Amino acid sequence: MSMRFATVRQGDTLTGARVDEDGRVVLVDADNAVDAFLRLDQLRDIGQADAATVRYACVSPAPAHILCVGLNYRSHIEQLGRPIPRYPTLFAKFASTLTGPRDRIVLPSVSDRVEGEVELAVIIGRPVHRVTTTEAMAAIAGYTVSNDLSLRDWQHRTSEALQGKVFDRSTPLGPVLVTPDEVDDAHDLTLSFTVDGVPWQHGSTSDLLFSPAELVAYCSTFLTLRPGDVILTGTPGTTADAAGLVPGQTMVTSIEGIGSAVNATAADPFPDTRPATDSPTEEGTPQAG
Amino acid sequence: MSMRFATVRQGDTLTGARVDEDGRVVLVDADNAVDAFLRLDQLRDIGQADAATVRYACVSPAPAHILCVGLNYRSHIEQLGRPIPRYPTLFAKFASTLTGPRDRIVLPSVSDRVEGEVELAVIIGRPVHRVTTTEAMAAIAGYTVSNDLSLRDWQHRTSEALQGKVFDRSTPLGPVLVTPDEVDDAHDLTLSFTVDGVPWQHGSTSDLLFSPAELVAYCSTFLTLRPGDVILTGTPGTTADAAGLVPGQTMVTSIEGIGSAVNATAADPFPDTRPATDSPTEEGTPQAG
Repeated sequence: MSMRFATVRQGDTLTGARVDEDGRVVLVDADNAVDAFLRLDQLRDIGQADAATVRYACVSPAPAHILCVGLNYRSHIEQLGRPIPRYPTLFAKFASTLTGPRDRIVLPSVSDRVEGEVELAVIIGRPVHRVTTTEAMAAIAGYTVSNDLSLRDWQHRTSEALQGKVFDRSTPLGPVLVTPDEVDDAHDLTLSFTVDGVPWQHGSTSDLLFSPAELVAYCSTFLTLRPGDVILTGTPGTTADAAGLVPGQTMVTSIEGIGSAVNATAADPFPDTRPATDSPTEEGTPQAG
Repeated sequence: MSMRFATVRQGDTLTGARVDEDGRVVLVDADNAVDAFLRLDQLRDIGQADAATVRYACVSPAPAHILCVGLNYRSHIEQLGRPIPRYPTLFAKFASTLTGPRDRIVLPSVSDRVEGEVELAVIIGRPVHRVTTTEAMAAIAGYTVSNDLSLRDWQHRTSEALQGKVFDRSTPLGPVLVTPDEVDDAHDLTLSFTVDGVPWQHGSTSDLLFSPAELVAYCSTFLTLRPGDVILTGTPGTTADAAGLVPGQTMVTSIEGIGSAVNATAADPFPDTRPATDSPTEEGTPQAG
């Protein structure tokens, strides 16, 4: 039952689609990719899209929970000079943070340093609460590609990363949900992040400290995960070429056997024009992250 | 236009309600308190509830964003021995984390130390993006009471607090949304948190470092806040009596002029029975928070 599902834009509405082995994109009577996956038995084909011009939306557009792992690749942890963590370091994103895998990404005018991060994303297919890793594995609907766009200055303003991670429509997710049986080994996939063709990140999921199933089981301890929920499993280290993004670049975020998000960067059309008096406390001490 | 709105349970569905000055609870044709506030001009009274037996639900049951401030009361910051922060320390909760102001709160079996925190909660009434503090003030639908239940051991497992803050149905919110004009001065309200009548927290919003309007303006820099969104503005210091919660206690979380959440604590009906091999990496180093 090896399958690929996408969420595609038809005018202003979203529709589920199945991407067949020959590359054909078949529209189905589902609201989105996760809905298509869940209703597999009742799915009806309702049309066909031109694979070259199909407009991919965020593959899971309305998750109740998005959980992201901060430190999960050994190479990245070593690069940061941190000890190997005992528990996953988790922060959240909101559904409003997500965007499509071909959408332009606005670089917020309020940030001096925006970077991308390739991440293997796990999409949940059934409700899970306090499951074992074996049960967690069976609850994974599939995998997709994500770019955890991060505003480094905002991320390090305080001890919590959230405010540098949840800018509107900053995190591409997609283009396809790939069912686990189609992924030869989720623990040995090559990942890369390039900007205008220059590699900024390169790694392998064999370097993951906490596996997808371990993360699902861990998160299911404190909340009930639901179909469509997303776990971003962390990012590998960066190359010497990694830098801050500027408008007009093309980011390609790829995972072997799953796909690529291709997103252009754009200048902020709504620069922050508020008077400086609306900025936070002047008395405060700048705080390290 | 001084008003109080609640979200009440009618069987399995939620209904908006207006709480009149004489204490009468009038059901209105709205989905919840925020919906009632937003549709004030078209509201129809559809019934009356017995104030003594009305079942209050979470006052804003489906926020797109819940943002929480980690360090915001000078007394608390001093108690923790931290420098005065320049920026708000923010973490997230999910809609699934919220619960009603009279609901039982399960103390998760996986935690050794659960504590409550009284917080003034701000509820957003209109979409805001990069607004000034003056505009932010006008976007506040009202205030309510929250208890930011925290699992201290989980909160300090890593550098990010999230996993100690988002257990299912752990954060009471309500009972009423009180419009700003009814609150004499949101910057001079007494707050308290008692357990079985013993004060564990006591403070005043005059001690707030970042005001409600400043927090709305700040958060609107990185995301577009929407009607129903919630900002928990942080918690004051604790008394010498503060301890870990145990089942069978009654928590009263109160803010002067707004109301009280009254929640009993209960043992976890679903203890974690998974084998220890499903716990995280054995090789990892315990990490300070």
